[in-house]
Parts: sequence; C-alpha cells; structure tokens
Amino acid sequence: MILHRIAIEPGSILTESKTGACLADALADAGYPVHLYCRRRGICGKCLIQIVEGDFGLPDADEAALLARRKAPAGSRLACRVTVTGPLTVLIPEASRPPSLAVVPEADWDGWRSVPLDPPLHKYSVRPDPPSLENPASDLDRLLASLPEAAWEPAPAALRGLAAVSRPGGAPFTLTAVVHDRRILAIEPGDTSGRQFGLAVDLGTTTVAAELVDLESGRTAASAAALNAQSRFGADVVSRITAARLDPAAAEGLRSAAWETVNGLLSRLLDQAGLPASAVYETVLAGNTAMTHLALGLSVASLTEAPFHPLVASLPPLPAGGTGSAAHPDGLVYFAPGIGSFVGGDISAGLAAADIESGPERILFVDLGTNGEIVLKNGDDLACTSTAAGPAFEGMSLSCGMIAGPGAVHAAHFAAGRLALDVIGGGAPMGICGSGIIDLLAMALEQGGLDASGAIRSAAGTIEAAPGLGLDRRDVREVQLAAAAVKTGMRRLLARAGLEAVDLDAVWVAGAFGSTLDVRHAVRLGLIPDVPPDRIRFLGNASLAGARLLLLSAAERDRCEALARRVRHVSLAGDAFQAAFVDSLAFSPWR
Amino acid sequence: MILHRIAIEPGSILTESKTGACLADALADAGYPVHLYCRRRGICGKCLIQIVEGDFGLPDADEAALLARRKAPAGSRLACRVTVTGPLTVLIPEASRPPSLAVVPEADWDGWRSVPLDPPLHKYSVRPDPPSLENPASDLDRLLASLPEAAWEPAPAALRGLAAVSRPGGAPFTLTAVVHDRRILAIEPGDTSGRQFGLAVDLGTTTVAAELVDLESGRTAASAAALNAQSRFGADVVSRITAARLDPAAAEGLRSAAWETVNGLLSRLLDQAGLPASAVYETVLAGNTAMTHLALGLSVASLTEAPFHPLVASLPPLPAGGTGSAAHPDGLVYFAPGIGSFVGGDISAGLAAADIESGPERILFVDLGTNGEIVLKNGDDLACTSTAAGPAFEGMSLSCGMIAGPGAVHAAHFAAGRLALDVIGGGAPMGICGSGIIDLLAMALEQGGLDASGAIRSAAGTIEAAPGLGLDRRDVREVQLAAAAVKTGMRRLLARAGLEAVDLDAVWVAGAFGSTLDVRHAVRLGLIPDVPPDRIRFLGNASLAGARLLLLSAAERDRCEALARRVRHVSLAGDAFQAAFVDSLAFSPWR
Repeated sequence: MILHRIAIEPGSILTESKTGACLADALADAGYPVHLYCRRRGICGKCLIQIVEGDFGLPDADEAALLARRKAPAGSRLACRVTVTGPLTVLIPEASRPPSLAVVPEADWDGWRSVPLDPPLHKYSVRPDPPSLENPASDLDRLLASLPEAAWEPAPAALRGLAAVSRPGGAPFTLTAVVHDRRILAIEPGDTSGRQFGLAVDLGTTTVAAELVDLESGRTAASAAALNAQSRFGADVVSRITAARLDPAAAEGLRSAAWETVNGLLSRLLDQAGLPASAVYETVLAGNTAMTHLALGLSVASLTEAPFHPLVASLPPLPAGGTGSAAHPDGLVYFAPGIGSFVGGDISAGLAAADIESGPERILFVDLGTNGEIVLKNGDDLACTSTAAGPAFEGMSLSCGMIAGPGAVHAAHFAAGRLALDVIGGGAPMGICGSGIIDLLAMALEQGGLDASGAIRSAAGTIEAAPGLGLDRRDVREVQLAAAAVKTGMRRLLARAGLEAVDLDAVWVAGAFGSTLDVRHAVRLGLIPDVPPDRIRFLGNASLAGARLLLLSAAERDRCEALARRVRHVSLAGDAFQAAFVDSLAFSPWR
Repeated sequence: MILHRIAIEPGSILTESKTGACLADALADAGYPVHLYCRRRGICGKCLIQIVEGDFGLPDADEAALLARRKAPAGSRLACRVTVTGPLTVLIPEASRPPSLAVVPEADWDGWRSVPLDPPLHKYSVRPDPPSLENPASDLDRLLASLPEAAWEPAPAALRGLAAVSRPGGAPFTLTAVVHDRRILAIEPGDTSGRQFGLAVDLGTTTVAAELVDLESGRTAASAAALNAQSRFGADVVSRITAARLDPAAAEGLRSAAWETVNGLLSRLLDQAGLPASAVYETVLAGNTAMTHLALGLSVASLTEAPFHPLVASLPPLPAGGTGSAAHPDGLVYFAPGIGSFVGGDISAGLAAADIESGPERILFVDLGTNGEIVLKNGDDLACTSTAAGPAFEGMSLSCGMIAGPGAVHAAHFAAGRLALDVIGGGAPMGICGSGIIDLLAMALEQGGLDASGAIRSAAGTIEAAPGLGLDRRDVREVQLAAAAVKTGMRRLLARAGLEAVDLDAVWVAGAFGSTLDVRHAVRLGLIPDVPPDRIRFLGNASLAGARLLLLSAAERDRCEALARRVRHVSLAGDAFQAAFVDSLAFSPWR
C-alpha cells in the first residue's frame, strides 16, 4: 500500500492517504471533513476544494460545468470526485467546512407555555438515620424512609450506588437520590442536589440543536447546534430510511451518527458549563418519527411502505445506557411522543410549547424544515399531515445555499435603492440560508427578476445576492417544489375541514429558519396563507422549546402525550394531492 | 513446565497436571472434583482419595491421624494435601465426589397456603388489528390496544421484539406479549402463550434446590438440587462474607459461584423438560440475606460489623440480563424479601408458604440449616432471630457426615434389637446425613452410649452406624454446639415474649433435613422444645415451597413483602446469650 502525504490548508495540517482513496474520505479521516450533502453525487458542490499543489486530475463534464457555473478558481475540484494518486496540498475554503452553528432559538413571544418548574427528574439530598441495634433496617429502607415521598422502586444501578455510600457503624452520612417519577435511578455520595441538569434536543433531519438546562432554576446553561451527521447517508428523510431499510450497516451507521451528533453537542455544552457528563440524568429528544426510529435502531420498514405506520409513537423514558447517549448511563432518554409516521415528536413538542390547545379557535401551524409538517386546529379538532419539502428551507441542496451559520446571508432587503445583505456574524457572505433565500426570491418577484412560474428574467439567468453568490434556475426550482409541497398540504388540510385561509385566527410558522424570516416575503411567495399580518406569528425553533418544556415539567409531559394522541394524522396520498400540487407551483400569494 | 499423566479411577480417565499442582485442583480441572468443604484445612476428610499407582508422598501428623481414625486403606490421602510430583493413578471413592442430590421437598401437609393461580408474569397471545390508511397507529399502540388490560410500559427489549414481528402491509399476525405487572418484557412472534415457565430456587448456603414451574398449570415440571458452588469459599455464611469483604476477587468468585450453581440447575431442569432457557422469564430466589447480597454482587461489609444491618432487604424484580442468570435475559429475577441481616428471603418465603399469619396464636418456627433461623409468632407479634449453626445439620463438616444424597444414612432405628439403617437410594451406606445423625445421637443417648454432656461412653470412643461409619468426639461436639446455638435462640425469643415452651400451640420445623426427620429424636436431644408431639410439625423445604408460591401469585408476593416488614428482627448479641448458650449445651429435653 502506497501512502501519499496530504497537506491541508489553512493550517498546514499533514496527513497521509493511500492510492485510490477518495479525497473527501482522506480529509474526514484527518479530522477536516467537507460537506457531503448530495451523497457524493457531485451535484451540490458543497465539497468544493482547491488543490494548490499536486495532480488534481480532470473533472468529468458534469463537474466541469458545475465548477464553471460557480466561477471556481483554477485547481478547484469537488473533493468527493478526487481520487488520491499522489501527494497533494489541499485548500478547504471555509464554505466547504461543516460550519459551527448558532442555535436558532424560539422567537420572543408571550404565547409560549409557561408552567411551574416540576421536572420528572429530581435529586433529593438526604441524611438517613444511621443503623443501630435498635434500627438495623437495610440501607435501602432507611434511605427510602428519609425520602419525602414513596419513591420506592430502586433501579439496579442504584443498588451499586448504595453499596458505595454505605458505611457500617459510621456517622450519619449525606447522600443524594436521583429520582425519576417513582424510580430511584442512582444514589450519589454527598449532597449533589445543586447539580441537576437535563439535555433538551431538537433532533432535526438537517440541523440538531441542543440546550443544557438547569433543572433547578429552569434556565438554559448553554446551547449549541450542529449539522446532523446522518446527512452523509442522505439529505432528506426518505433517502435515509430507504438506506436504512436496504442495508443493516447503513441503519447502524444512521443510528450511531444520530448519537455522534447529540453527544458532540453534549460535550460542547458540558465544556461551556464546566460540568461532567454524569451531571446529565435526562435527555429529552424531539425529532420526527424517522429520526426517533433511526436513533433507537428500530426498523424503519413500516415507514417506507403503505400504510406508512410507525413501529412506535409514544415511549416511556428509556435507560440512557442502552441507547447511544453519552450522558449518565443510569439516566434516561425520553423521546417526545410521535403522532404518525411522518409527524413526530418535534411537532408534538412544538405544539405543547406553543400551547395550541389554549390558543384561538382556528390555527394553522406549519413547521418548515426538511419535512414540512402542518397541523390544523379547528375548534376541538386537531389534524396534521406532512409533506417532503427537502432541505431547501434550511439552505441546503442549493448551489449557494448554506445552513444558518456564520457567513450565511440570513436576510436581504433594499436600502436606498440597493440590495443590502445581513450576514450572520458579519463579514463577507459565504452562502445564503433559508430566510435569505425567501427574501431574495420575494424581492426578485417584486422587481420582475422572477415571474410567478419560477422563470428567471435576468440576462445572467441567476438571481444574484453578491458576485458569484446567487440562485440559479435549479435552485429556484428546488425552492418552488418545496414551497408547493407545503402549500398543497396546507390547502388540502383546510379543504378537508371546509375552511378558507381567511377563516384562520392564526398562522404559526415554526422551523429552523433564521429568526429573521420575513413573513411578508413568505406570504408573497405563497409559502404561507395570505392572512392579515397580525395573525401570522414566526415561532422559530418551537421543537427545541418543547423539548425544554418536557424536561422541566412532568405535568406538561403527560399533557403532551395526551395531545399527541388527540391529533389525527391525515395522509394526503391519493387525496387529489397531485393536482393540487401542480396548482401550487406558482410563486404567488394565496388570494 | 513438566506435565504428568494422571489416571482417574473408576473410569480410567486420563488427564495431565504440572509439577507442584495440588491434586484436588488437578482432579477438578479434569472435571472430577472432590469435596473441599473445610477449605483445604485438612480436617473434614471429605476429599479422601486412594493413590493406586505413583508416589503418594507422606502425610503430615494431622493427616496421618485422620487417616488412621478413618481406618483408611493403604495409599489413602486427602487430595487437598497431595502435591503432584509425577504420574499418578488416583481412585476417587464415591463418598468423596460431590453427590447428585435429590430435592428435599416440602412435607405433605394441609397447612400449606393454597391460592388461585395469579402469576405476576403472564403471556398474552394477541392478534392486533393490521395497520391501514384509516388506522396507521404505531405497531406498539395497536399491540397495546389488543391487550386485555392497560399493561402499558414496554421495556426497551420489547421494542426489538416489535421490530421483528412487524410486517408492513402484511396480513394480521399473531404475537405474544410477555407481561410482568405493568411492564411488557418482550414480544415474541407467533403464539407462545402455552410455554410459560418460571424457576423457583431455594438458594441455601450448603444446598441449592430448584424447580421449573409451569406458570399456566401451577405444576412443577422438574426439580433438582446441587451443592452450592460457593462452598469452596467456606462452609458457612460467616466465612463467605468474611472472604467477600476482605477480597474483591473472592466477592466476585462468590457471586459467580452462586449463579454457576443456579444456572447448572436450570440447565438440568430445562434438559429434563425439553425447553430452551428462553422459556424462563422469571426466577424467584429465596435465600438468606448473605446469599442475596453475594448473588447480587452487593457489598457485605455491613453484614460483618455491628449493628449488622443489610444493604438491601426488599427489592423489586431485577432485569435478569444484569444478574448472572442464564434464563431469558429480558426476564426478571426476584429475591424473596429479607427480614434482617441474618434472617432472609428463605424465611419470609417459608413463612408465607406455611401461612404463619393464618396459623394458631403462638407458633415457634425454626429453620434448621447452616443458619438456624427462628421465628416466634405471639398473637400479632412476629419476632425472629438467627443463630450460626454451621453445616452440621446438613451432614457436612462431620467426619462421616454427608449431604442428603444417594448413599446417605437418613434414618436409623432399632429393629428386632438391632440397629437398622435407611440409606437414600438403597445400597451400602456412604455417609450419614442430618436426620440420620439426629437419630444416631438420640438412640445413643437412650442406650447409654452417649451422656447428656456429650461424652461418648463406648469403648471405641465412637458412635458407630456401620463399620468405619460413625460419629466421633469431634462430630458429637459439632452437633452439640449447633444444637445449643439454635436452642439458645429459641429460648431467648420465648423469654423475651414471656412465654414458656408449653404455651406454644405449634412448633414448625423447616430445613434441608431429609424428609424423615424423627421429631421425637430432635426433642430428645433438646433441639426443639418438648411439647406434645401433635403440636410439632416437620415442614421440609418451606423455603422452596415459598419461592414457588411467590412465582405463582402476585397477591402472595405483596403479602410476603408486607409480612417481611412486619417481622421484628431481634439481635441476640449482648442479650445474655453466652450464659444461655452454656446452659443449652446438654443433650436433654427442655423439661
């Protein structure tokens, strides 16, 4: 085996790779991965690198065309298309690196459910009576007697803890019982009750966001977001569950990639807060049904075939040690309850956080992510459906799209007759994220650079945000298809309920969009119904807000479980969907 | 390393052993272990073998004296004292092999608690509605809906089972849910409800007895007994917990030896019944507190120091996979609730089976095993204590004693003026078990061969059952000490309650004695109180009967838990025990 030296810039990192290896793999092995969102199909262009020294070979016609469209400098290649044959010096542009993401929080809103702190997980610091000849009761019994309630059932792991703190004949000792519901998960020596943390996770298809939550104060101690490492198996839900169904190794890869992402975030959060992993005894994950199944290593077969039913929807908290979680192994992992095969715990958690039950009579809730999930509240009735939007709304899969991280154009507007861009973190724009894409398209429609059919009217054939940064025909088409899918879903749900958009008291838009989504622009594109602006509310990451709520309140967890069972899951297949879809393709407001 | 050939007779088994090895180890490694009850101290003589060919070396003075006392043939040695230095041919007499034991059952008695079948573990065979577009509920939800009660919480392992039986789009399928209390332990494809088995175990210090119980019919499918493999760490409880406390490796050895014994029995029972280990979803173990702690790998430190309190007494059923059990790993292991540091689940189970609560007003219950546990019922009051009897009552630790297995003299009486012996399984007597020892001593007392002080009056200085088979001064002393310990315990409990023996309505004697214990002889020795014979009842293995009861009835399990909490544990330390003990040494009836 011949090994070639690979130098990675910036940073002059040295690594080695064997002849015949894919450069993208060699870079990932060295700890410098590139984006691989189109699964090495060579169409997303996100793994673009420059070969500064060495033989960079010849791109094929498709790759050459893509490089030309991007006006890529000489020596540019897609790392997924380069085979290592000799020593190389490779420059990875910032835009090709998986970015460090900021958490999209929930939007500022007084409609969020606010409840008393009542976490299912609680630590009790106690000082049991010492054993004596008069009271030779077991250590466990004396511990139980010292607890404020009959939290009786010790988990097996708690027995180990008991052995560690038991001191025959010694002075009374303080210990802390970690209790969940009626179960003692662990017993820790000393008083550790001041350290009660939980992890709330929005397990998104594209983006995973997490918060370390102080269960005593209810405050968020740290937050972070990352791309879902499952992305290397496919950008959307359907491609991932198809991969998992066809290949057990892919299923296992998807399972471990989910935990790799969650654990990576946990580790960053713990570093920020200066805490060990053992401080986290409960994790609440809000993810769609496919994410939940994949993370649990459950068969997704039933999700890929009619009637598309899930294996599980609602689950009790599971022992963390049996999942892939790196939090305390004696702790628990709880998945927010799923509603149907394609409407999952992220939606039930979001609905709980936004308190849809206490909201006005008629609410259209839409979560614009890689899936577009839609819930219609019509009096006592709650119906939901989902549409496959793909990752366009999260900025992925578009030529210049990127996730809402540093360098992303997250808003565009006209200032003094000129296009002005807001870039996350300031600095030069490196790509355009979902909210920026909506802005650019809506403004192009208004300015005549784009027509309602999706045709680009400019001479260059692109909608430019900055030189070399814009949306081409394919990008527009991708957004158009995503928007049409969601629009069709909303229309069908309304039609089934005999409602018009004008009947809606509220339209709630959730999702991983940058928090700056301009809802007027979304209305202009027809992405959301054309109702009076004061009825439209952008919620931001409602799913993460919901995961936090379920971590902080046992009562809300019960309420969310009941809510998930109340929501009817409506399948749009065979429901005149196709015709409605074609009608929905136009970029135009609903009225 | 020099290897020497060792031939083992009978059977001409060939094995090899290195220079310097202990012969007892070499034999055990070859699969032909010898008894090692005195832990290689060279005093029990149970590992006596004959070296037919080869250098058998020179015994030291103690061993030579023991061999002379036993009238051992030429070439005899204690295997624990022989160092291998060359090739050997070794004859292992039957008496030196750990016997294959018969189960001592509970005695025939109409006082045993009899209850309706209501096992906590139950299998439900169901045929959930198939998923459809109209009912795309999750597999789990449809399964739950098809169960007769809201047995809602699936164990994580059950989710794996669900994935295996789910068939999207297929015909309705039958599956079997294994439910324990409100927990679904596992899901099996097809209808396996006809195969519901549990394992009941009396986890004795010396003898372990087990039954495979059909949970549907309540019948015992197979039963077996074996010596507790923990015996190699010491014959009695105190030596084992001391070993475990001093050496973590010994603690781990004791833990695994307990499961080695239980699993060996399970394997024999499954063979007998033609079942796989996966058929057994619950094991109920009734053992003393030290056995429970050791089997669970819990610290025994608190059992070895004042105030001698246990780490745990009552425990919920534990996942079998986390213990050393070889039964179904997704099943459960339940330990009958302990009462105090030296009165354990074997006693609570025995009390439940004998239904002491429904019995007459004043009952003295005594379990004569390696520990002597005593319970006094006085109206509503239940008090208990325990005394360290040692293994003498189980036939161990005496020169010619043996466990109640084939070849053991289990009864002796005079017939036509001559001593007649009943041997288990017929044939020549190989040793004397507990009940036989009681008979021989009582008869010697009556005949004048033994006086009340324990002095042997015969010229030979032994009480002979057969030529070369009898009790010598040391043996008598051992039984005398064991009996005095138990007697003292009974007397102190009675005295504390202000009762005399004559006040007792019933004396219940349980234990691993052969079922032929002659209670008149036990009264004659003072081992049990001298009350009218119709008040004395020999119960046999009440502990095993209790384990079976707890396997078969959830209500009885709750009742036993409550009973265990009701019994007061009385420590006899510092309670004029020593003086009473000296008073109790005489072999004489109480009055």
